[in-house]
Amino acid sequence: MSGRYDTITFLSDYGVVDEFVGVVRSVVRELAPEVTMIDLTHGVPAHDVRAGALTLARAVQYVAPGVILAVVDPGVGTERRAVAVEVLDGRAVFVGPDNGLLAPAVAVAGGATRAVELTSAEHRLPSPGATFDGRDVFAPAAAHLCNGVDLTELGPAVSPGSLLPATLPIPRQEGDQLVGEVLWTDTFGNCQLNVGPEEVESWEAIMVRWGDEARVAHRADSYAELGDGRLGLVTDSYGVLAVCLDRRSAADELGIGPGSEIRLEEAT
Amino acid sequence: MSGRYDTITFLSDYGVVDEFVGVVRSVVRELAPEVTMIDLTHGVPAHDVRAGALTLARAVQYVAPGVILAVVDPGVGTERRAVAVEVLDGRAVFVGPDNGLLAPAVAVAGGATRAVELTSAEHRLPSPGATFDGRDVFAPAAAHLCNGVDLTELGPAVSPGSLLPATLPIPRQEGDQLVGEVLWTDTFGNCQLNVGPEEVESWEAIMVRWGDEARVAHRADSYAELGDGRLGLVTDSYGVLAVCLDRRSAADELGIGPGSEIRLEEAT
Amino acid sequence: MSGRYDTITFLSDYGVVDEFVGVVRSVVRELAPEVTMIDLTHGVPAHDVRAGALTLARAVQYVAPGVILAVVDPGVGTERRAVAVEVLDGRAVFVGPDNGLLAPAVAVAGGATRAVELTSAEHRLPSPGATFDGRDVFAPAAAHLCNGVDLTELGPAVSPGSLLPATLPIPRQEGDQLVGEVLWTDTFGNCQLNVGPEEVESWEAIMVRWGDEARVAHRADSYAELGDGRLGLVTDSYGVLAVCLDRRSAADELGIGPGSEIRLEEAT
Repeated sequence: MSGRYDTITFLSDYGVVDEFVGVVRSVVRELAPEVTMIDLTHGVPAHDVRAGALTLARAVQYVAPGVILAVVDPGVGTERRAVAVEVLDGRAVFVGPDNGLLAPAVAVAGGATRAVELTSAEHRLPSPGATFDGRDVFAPAAAHLCNGVDLTELGPAVSPGSLLPATLPIPRQEGDQLVGEVLWTDTFGNCQLNVGPEEVESWEAIMVRWGDEARVAHRADSYAELGDGRLGLVTDSYGVLAVCLDRRSAADELGIGPGSEIRLEEAT
Repeated sequence: MSGRYDTITFLSDYGVVDEFVGVVRSVVRELAPEVTMIDLTHGVPAHDVRAGALTLARAVQYVAPGVILAVVDPGVGTERRAVAVEVLDGRAVFVGPDNGLLAPAVAVAGGATRAVELTSAEHRLPSPGATFDGRDVFAPAAAHLCNGVDLTELGPAVSPGSLLPATLPIPRQEGDQLVGEVLWTDTFGNCQLNVGPEEVESWEAIMVRWGDEARVAHRADSYAELGDGRLGLVTDSYGVLAVCLDRRSAADELGIGPGSEIRLEEAT
Repeated sequence: MSGRYDTITFLSDYGVVDEFVGVVRSVVRELAPEVTMIDLTHGVPAHDVRAGALTLARAVQYVAPGVILAVVDPGVGTERRAVAVEVLDGRAVFVGPDNGLLAPAVAVAGGATRAVELTSAEHRLPSPGATFDGRDVFAPAAAHLCNGVDLTELGPAVSPGSLLPATLPIPRQEGDQLVGEVLWTDTFGNCQLNVGPEEVESWEAIMVRWGDEARVAHRADSYAELGDGRLGLVTDSYGVLAVCLDRRSAADELGIGPGSEIRLEEAT
């Protein structure tokens, strides 16, 4: 059974209200009944390719070897390519739209070793309409890959260098200030920045500035360490700085979210 | 192992906040440990039998052979019957309340070949209360069917003709207008109508009327083809017309939803 | 394969929007690929240990034998202990924080037979940050237990008597009134009380008082039996009294929820 995969990890912006996720799972169940599917999340905001790309990039280090099926696809039915991108010489294959969604995770996994465009008609489902490639194109491709179909059977080779890259914001120095932004707000209201803890390591206390406001934040390793009401810069579970409160939502209290500019400076 | 099923596809209005879905899965796990369960969705609006019936009917063509467990059951604990309805000479069995929820999907699957009322006490769980037949009646029946228990062991035969039908709205012609309604609004705000694309095939541009408002819509095969702000009538993934916008919610922008009357006429 | 478990039942307050649940499942998939995971729910309100504890206690009688992984953990990264608690001489093991979350379910299951603190470094994942013990501590412990690792290998024994208990509210009599409270509001708006049906068994009609309001409620075995608008006290699916309406939310209509004091007296 070499060359086969037994796990499909699945991310989308389908939500959990409609039947979309269930239908995709049903399609895989019919084509590759032995495969285990793991829902990474389907709560990516609708059409938000950047949020989906960041989620994949955060999680990919933990994902089981196999196929990673990722669908945040506002351009479904248009000229954007449907692709399968192999990494780690075949240890994993990403399947999804070539719209930047896969790029950061592919980079984290060491870059593409091979890629194809998913054009093979016999590896698709017939489509009553062109708006659900998750069901008709991506899920069948993922299932066929698990069954041992080689990447090259799914369509013509694509140069990994031609895949759409993602542009992720890099923090910059402006005088005494480190200017970053919020990448992600989690369910608990913690706001992950694009800033690593090493960049503020020598600072005892840190002034956090957003919009016209400013507040002193404390470095901490846990939320509870902050105690009641103190703002914190916590090294989060991915090793990145996050603006946090203990048992309360920093996002709600500060009025910030993905894309908000955050300026950090040493408090004196 | 002939006569056994290895998949239960599960739809309900239980939501994903309470433990109801997890408890049903646990009950099946104990009774039929080898079975794979696929959640079709648990996001059917509470008590909305029609929405659940439409969801099942849309999805059933993709569902894996086996048992389809469906529970939207405002009449739980009353005289409404609990039933198992076999289709395709046993290729699949629907298990759920006889309240119209199953009827459209059973029809899509070609009609009932056999049906029984689920009265067998030995195939139920003892109930501390009578309000959770998903756990106490339907899940055990689904599990026992997977284990090879024949339909006839679960209770007395029911005439398929006596099962409660669903009444789905059919579009009608009024002068130059085709009068339909919204069947379903999806997560992205696309509004599926009860109108097929063949009914407007010769129309170049289409006036969409709802409430006291009207707007020209364009036929399109993808959302992105509409571009910024243009209203579209897109053949959706089930082959039916839907009122759509590109990357925005038509439901929110037009203020329409399931049950809204929509009038279509050729724009001149 | 004696001593091994094939099922992990998983409850948390992670929600279904972020990738947390998917990452935990991925970690288990890598360490114990044969294990089936059942999501009990991830909709426990953020940081709400009491709500999580009540959910576990309600559901535990239905949970399949094996490991029960439960994470509602506002004190993550602090001195609170991470524990594994064996019940029923090893038929099941609870894994989670020692903050009261596990206590009611452990009691329902007959009490702890053994317990350990999860300190073994080799049975954890390396952590980029200290805020996701679900991924780094609890999931690996659950997987290793399934693989046959003995409880004692995961860390030093802990006296079951030293585990943090939960304090659940007990109803009290005040004159003619039975004073209870709402333990749980479900998706449908039914409000479960901490009062059993036997305590009001002889009462024909019951006055329900909350805040400054009062309303007569009727004993019923199903929601539909109440009919349009009548308030009911229904024996719910766990055998406990719940304040209910037929097809409407009692929680919304009465403005009550978890923690609300409810006074019951016989109506004359």
